[in-house]
Amino acid sequence: MSSPLIALLARALLVLSLGHAQSLLAQPAPAPSAPAAASVVSSAPGVHQFTLANGMDLIIKPDRRAPTAVHMLWVRVGSMDEVDGSSGIAHVLEHMMFKGTPTVKAGEFSRRVAALGGRDNAFTSRDATAYHQQVPANRLREVMELEADRFASNSWPDEEFRREIEVIKEERRQRTDDSPRAQLYEMAQATLFTASPYRRPIIGWMNDIESLTPEEVREFRLRWYAPANAAVVVAGDVDVAQVRAWAEQYYGAIPARAVPARKPRIEPPQNGPRRLEHRARTSQGYLSLMFKVPQFEASALAAETVPAGPSRDALALTVLAAVLDGYSGARLDRALTQGPQRLAHSAGAYNGLYGRGPQVFTLDGVPVEGRSAQEVVDALRAQVAEVAQNGVSAAELQRVKTQWIASETYKLDALFSQARELGTAWLMGFPLDVNSRLVKHLRTITAQEVQQVAQRYFGDAQSTLAVLVPEANAPAPGASPSSPAKPSAPVR
Amino acid sequence: MSSPLIALLARALLVLSLGHAQSLLAQPAPAPSAPAAASVVSSAPGVHQFTLANGMDLIIKPDRRAPTAVHMLWVRVGSMDEVDGSSGIAHVLEHMMFKGTPTVKAGEFSRRVAALGGRDNAFTSRDATAYHQQVPANRLREVMELEADRFASNSWPDEEFRREIEVIKEERRQRTDDSPRAQLYEMAQATLFTASPYRRPIIGWMNDIESLTPEEVREFRLRWYAPANAAVVVAGDVDVAQVRAWAEQYYGAIPARAVPARKPRIEPPQNGPRRLEHRARTSQGYLSLMFKVPQFEASALAAETVPAGPSRDALALTVLAAVLDGYSGARLDRALTQGPQRLAHSAGAYNGLYGRGPQVFTLDGVPVEGRSAQEVVDALRAQVAEVAQNGVSAAELQRVKTQWIASETYKLDALFSQARELGTAWLMGFPLDVNSRLVKHLRTITAQEVQQVAQRYFGDAQSTLAVLVPEANAPAPGASPSSPAKPSAPVR
Repeated sequence: MSSPLIALLARALLVLSLGHAQSLLAQPAPAPSAPAAASVVSSAPGVHQFTLANGMDLIIKPDRRAPTAVHMLWVRVGSMDEVDGSSGIAHVLEHMMFKGTPTVKAGEFSRRVAALGGRDNAFTSRDATAYHQQVPANRLREVMELEADRFASNSWPDEEFRREIEVIKEERRQRTDDSPRAQLYEMAQATLFTASPYRRPIIGWMNDIESLTPEEVREFRLRWYAPANAAVVVAGDVDVAQVRAWAEQYYGAIPARAVPARKPRIEPPQNGPRRLEHRARTSQGYLSLMFKVPQFEASALAAETVPAGPSRDALALTVLAAVLDGYSGARLDRALTQGPQRLAHSAGAYNGLYGRGPQVFTLDGVPVEGRSAQEVVDALRAQVAEVAQNGVSAAELQRVKTQWIASETYKLDALFSQARELGTAWLMGFPLDVNSRLVKHLRTITAQEVQQVAQRYFGDAQSTLAVLVPEANAPAPGASPSSPAKPSAPVR
Repeated sequence: MSSPLIALLARALLVLSLGHAQSLLAQPAPAPSAPAAASVVSSAPGVHQFTLANGMDLIIKPDRRAPTAVHMLWVRVGSMDEVDGSSGIAHVLEHMMFKGTPTVKAGEFSRRVAALGGRDNAFTSRDATAYHQQVPANRLREVMELEADRFASNSWPDEEFRREIEVIKEERRQRTDDSPRAQLYEMAQATLFTASPYRRPIIGWMNDIESLTPEEVREFRLRWYAPANAAVVVAGDVDVAQVRAWAEQYYGAIPARAVPARKPRIEPPQNGPRRLEHRARTSQGYLSLMFKVPQFEASALAAETVPAGPSRDALALTVLAAVLDGYSGARLDRALTQGPQRLAHSAGAYNGLYGRGPQVFTLDGVPVEGRSAQEVVDALRAQVAEVAQNGVSAAELQRVKTQWIASETYKLDALFSQARELGTAWLMGFPLDVNSRLVKHLRTITAQEVQQVAQRYFGDAQSTLAVLVPEANAPAPGASPSSPAKPSAPVR
């Protein structure tokens, strides 16, 4: 549904993982079954949901194909819950969660998981922070005990914090300051969004990272890591009653705490195009053209069909992105990247279907040498205009719909994907079977509806164009006003 | 030193006053005499500075020309000290400071000042909040008592807060949402600055104003209205020893409190032009072209002459702005706004010499009908390029310098200006005679230095262009997603 480029950006920038490539929060990722029942039993086949007395949610999906289990702890706090001056704090806290408790010393958490025969990681996104382990199913109890201990009692000396901040600054240098495209992305988000917290990078501005204090990080944890702001998801070869008993024992013992009020921080209306360039020493140009679009809301799931309105438009925009760029040889490929006269090395379309903050439809591309960013922009827009004028064919529509169904089935193969998708549904306040419902609803989108959204949402007034301009004399990547780069430290 | 247009913007948008036109915080406003001694005596003629035991500063400037006195309380907290989600809170607190104390009921403060034969007001800027009264000199004691009471004990019921929030929302509608140019300015600041808190409007985003709670406002006051974060400035027909004794009595009784640490929130480097349009139903277009420039730093005042470097460049940029637009018939006027073929109704240049946050050099203009924004931009840039290539004449330089000296003398005529300029110097941590020093240093700037800054700071990479585009079909001004406009409420 998205080009390798967009996928790259989405992966590199919408989620900061501690390490492995597996720990990625895909945007609209379909998942299986189960309604969001507030208590004991789930009516959806295969998924069980409970709420502990302290408000923490517990979601269990037995899958007995192999003797293994994935355990994920989700906290509904991400970079969008930060305020400026301390941007990056959610991600810093994620790192510090590996730095010990009164009974588990720094670094010991991951060593113990490894000793159980498992592996572990964590990630921070704009919308959430999550910690996850995959272990032999018979060692699940131990990781639940470890994770509950960390959630309740994470603590570390200031010195440990200061060391980790250096690691995180190095992570920022590698991911952002040394990457012209990541720098463009960062500036583009800050221009695209005026007041929404989505405008800030997940990893935080370098200057904010540098000025964070250990006390701020501790306060952030006490503020947001409340049981009622978290969910435990377990998928794998497990017994529901047993997992529930362990959850009551370990997580249920954590005292309840109020979840702080959140500020809405609604994005003010945009009524005129925005454009920014980032000039950098790089061999390839790049451009990203973004349009503010409506997103899919939980309320649209109330009826059997999604009624006309913003949520239905969000679905149609997702179909439009797939028609443009959902498979090899789709419209953008054919028009921009094929043949000897091709304009672009790559071209993509991506729609943000939902999230805790405002969503965007993105067209992007890498011009080939000798072609300008503006030519690629014009060609991308021409493809949308073509759909707006002449619509899409039944065959195209069928192709993207069939592909979704296949990819859903494929995704469910991995326990980690199952757990991640259940967690994402919980995060958004959607029913746990939201993604199978979304696929069902996407299949009802007509060619005419795709044509209508192509007509409606791609005017100038809501657009932001970001252009990466290769320039021999630009400051070298990584030339930032903060302290000079040091040799790479291991990022865990 | 600035065109009517820029002055308009600066006045309307950099300062939110409760009412009268007098209460404006000019940007680089020269003031008289006096070093920032930490204790009892000032070595500069005419100005006395003391620090009370609780850390509050007291600045007294006797001026016996008339039996009147100006009293100003400055707090070093403005919109730049806010975090997002609660933008506008400094200004809301300024309003609430008129809503009573345990001994003075809501609205009573201003009634009492009026009963003393005085008038009072207050303003909030990006950098500071200030409260001021002008009274017959023999009633100074009473306003000091009233102001100290309010600083120490401001309190009000939630209901009073809710009423005032409606007043402030109406203020925002009038000042910003109903003004296409103010809307452009707001969006331009948000695009120009990426991480600096200067990117947010002083009055706050509407949605943030709507979601403020009374408790947040009370906490903001307790956090920032500490004696060591404030200064009292008195100018007029007063006796220094007597004013000091009253200050000790009323302000000195307020318990000392720590001033919170401030986050630096340094603006990340910009390396590529930015451009935004705002389309609105308006009869006149407008454009503003902004360049990030260095600012004048207190450290540059250490030596007898300002050494080559950012601070000296800031002075030279200020001279450049004056050469372009410092007097009727200056370069921009001659090139853009005169004659039958004129491009623009008005054109301006303004340099931000100093402030607590990053500074900007602005060129702006209002195209005449039939001429495009781009033509005006090109003409403005051509004027800077002309200086970059051919320099400025000795006569021009002399003219702007003479004019400054005259305007300084004129400014000092008003007690309010004297108090405001002393307060501004205190705010910035400058010596109290900074403005007479600045005028002296500005006079040392050579034609060659003006030429050099014209060559150095007006490239594309640090520029942001904001264009107001008249459009018949644009949303009407004031059409915001928040509640509909109501009839104007009195803003006091």
